Amino acid sequence: MLDRIAEQPDSLDAIRERARAVRAEARSGGFDGQTAGISPGSVQGNVAILPADWAHEFLNFCRRNPKPCPVLAVSDPGDPMLAELGDRVDIRTDVPRYRVFENGAEIDETTDISNYWRDDLVAFVIGCSFSFEEALVQSGVPVRHLDLDIECPIYKTNIPCAPAGRFHGPLVVSMRPMLPKDAIRAIQITSRFPNVHGSPVHFGAPADIGIKDINTVDYGGPVPIHKGEVPVFWGCGVTPQAVVEAAKPPFMITHKPNHLLVTDLVNAELAML
Amino acid sequence: MLDRIAEQPDSLDAIRERARAVRAEARSGGFDGQTAGISPGSVQGNVAILPADWAHEFLNFCRRNPKPCPVLAVSDPGDPMLAELGDRVDIRTDVPRYRVFENGAEIDETTDISNYWRDDLVAFVIGCSFSFEEALVQSGVPVRHLDLDIECPIYKTNIPCAPAGRFHGPLVVSMRPMLPKDAIRAIQITSRFPNVHGSPVHFGAPADIGIKDINTVDYGGPVPIHKGEVPVFWGCGVTPQAVVEAAKPPFMITHKPNHLLVTDLVNAELAML
Repeated sequence: MLDRIAEQPDSLDAIRERARAVRAEARSGGFDGQTAGISPGSVQGNVAILPADWAHEFLNFCRRNPKPCPVLAVSDPGDPMLAELGDRVDIRTDVPRYRVFENGAEIDETTDISNYWRDDLVAFVIGCSFSFEEALVQSGVPVRHLDLDIECPIYKTNIPCAPAGRFHGPLVVSMRPMLPKDAIRAIQITSRFPNVHGSPVHFGAPADIGIKDINTVDYGGPVPIHKGEVPVFWGCGVTPQAVVEAAKPPFMITHKPNHLLVTDLVNAELAML
Repeated sequence: MLDRIAEQPDSLDAIRERARAVRAEARSGGFDGQTAGISPGSVQGNVAILPADWAHEFLNFCRRNPKPCPVLAVSDPGDPMLAELGDRVDIRTDVPRYRVFENGAEIDETTDISNYWRDDLVAFVIGCSFSFEEALVQSGVPVRHLDLDIECPIYKTNIPCAPAGRFHGPLVVSMRPMLPKDAIRAIQITSRFPNVHGSPVHFGAPADIGIKDINTVDYGGPVPIHKGEVPVFWGCGVTPQAVVEAAKPPFMITHKPNHLLVTDLVNAELAML
């Protein structure tokens, strides 16, 4: 007779407790590092903070481009608390590292933006591919850059995002090479996660979406594509970041790349169906 | 040997052509009637038009409450054209009947709002249950109020919507009685349509969501619930309409109930998976 396996998946409460511990460390200044793998099961988010008179256009830009820009939460103007994302989530202190911009130029990199906070700021938190990658791995779909422990390859495409007001720019995509059978499964799995980029935007020929050389990335690192594999492309959270930087608002704060907000949301909760 | 059945489903182009013909008739004043069944296959939308300084809060309200308020399109301020919804969709003329409000009071009912249009107006088009009802019927799930040719029963609940700025109010739901096996199928089918209310919010005991008497509706008409059936409740587009009316913006235009905007989008295109 088989023994029971003692290890159970973490409960939602245990995952949330870990997320809160990570935020508490970030808040106190005890943690300012990269967040990949820091709280397995937790939804992490990209951050953009804009003046209120830019907020509607940016929210509408995200709505028009949900695959690269899936919005998880928007603060009320001047309110630094993001109740949509959990217990006591304070956008001024809970991100490990921030970048501060004036008129498109970086003026500071910091671990606490309390001294920059204003009554007219609106914080946006946008879903990230960490969530669906966890689901892929749990379903037995290999993710090359995770296996190699390198950064995901990211490319600018020639596909224009639907513009909204002052925000416009090309779709930026991430790429994961897969065997077709794994790509089909990955399409099914990521379709269940529309809040974290959802299904792919393209697979196969990179030139079809304006990528001239798959080995020349715009961000992250290239990964090898093995015989029989096709590149599969997903909308990427670098898109809103590039678009908002290009728009050069008079004031803006973002997370530092790879230093994301860890939320109380749990990846498994985001899945549709 | 069987003959081939001559009838084929309408092509997407044929469905769009019909939608354009309906809008052209509405634009010219030749059609000002109810839109149920007017263009099978076409996505229809509820309409709310607000001044730009109310637009962000309303869009954020909708984003926070996607089941009752699934946004299909938002115009740029002052731009009456809704390119997101098709070819030459002019929100000033293409809805069969409009209601115009000042400070919450209705001041006009009309078939053309060109003379009310202003440079600061933003038009919102919100998904409607016509789309998923068509998918239910096509999948063999009976929809009682359609079978009886009466209006769908609609109820206010005691579930508060997530507020955003000046917009707040209770979730309003539509109800369709079903056998459990059909309810399970309906949950699968409507989960594929997050842009038109998506999966149900509740089924079973009406009192659980604050409905005291299932035979006393707040809008529409009651329908009989047969032995073995459970009431199944979906978020309803009356929610944003009630919320925006309660907020009493200084100026606002909506469609007249049941007189919706017929778009070039096709119901089958909205389906996920």
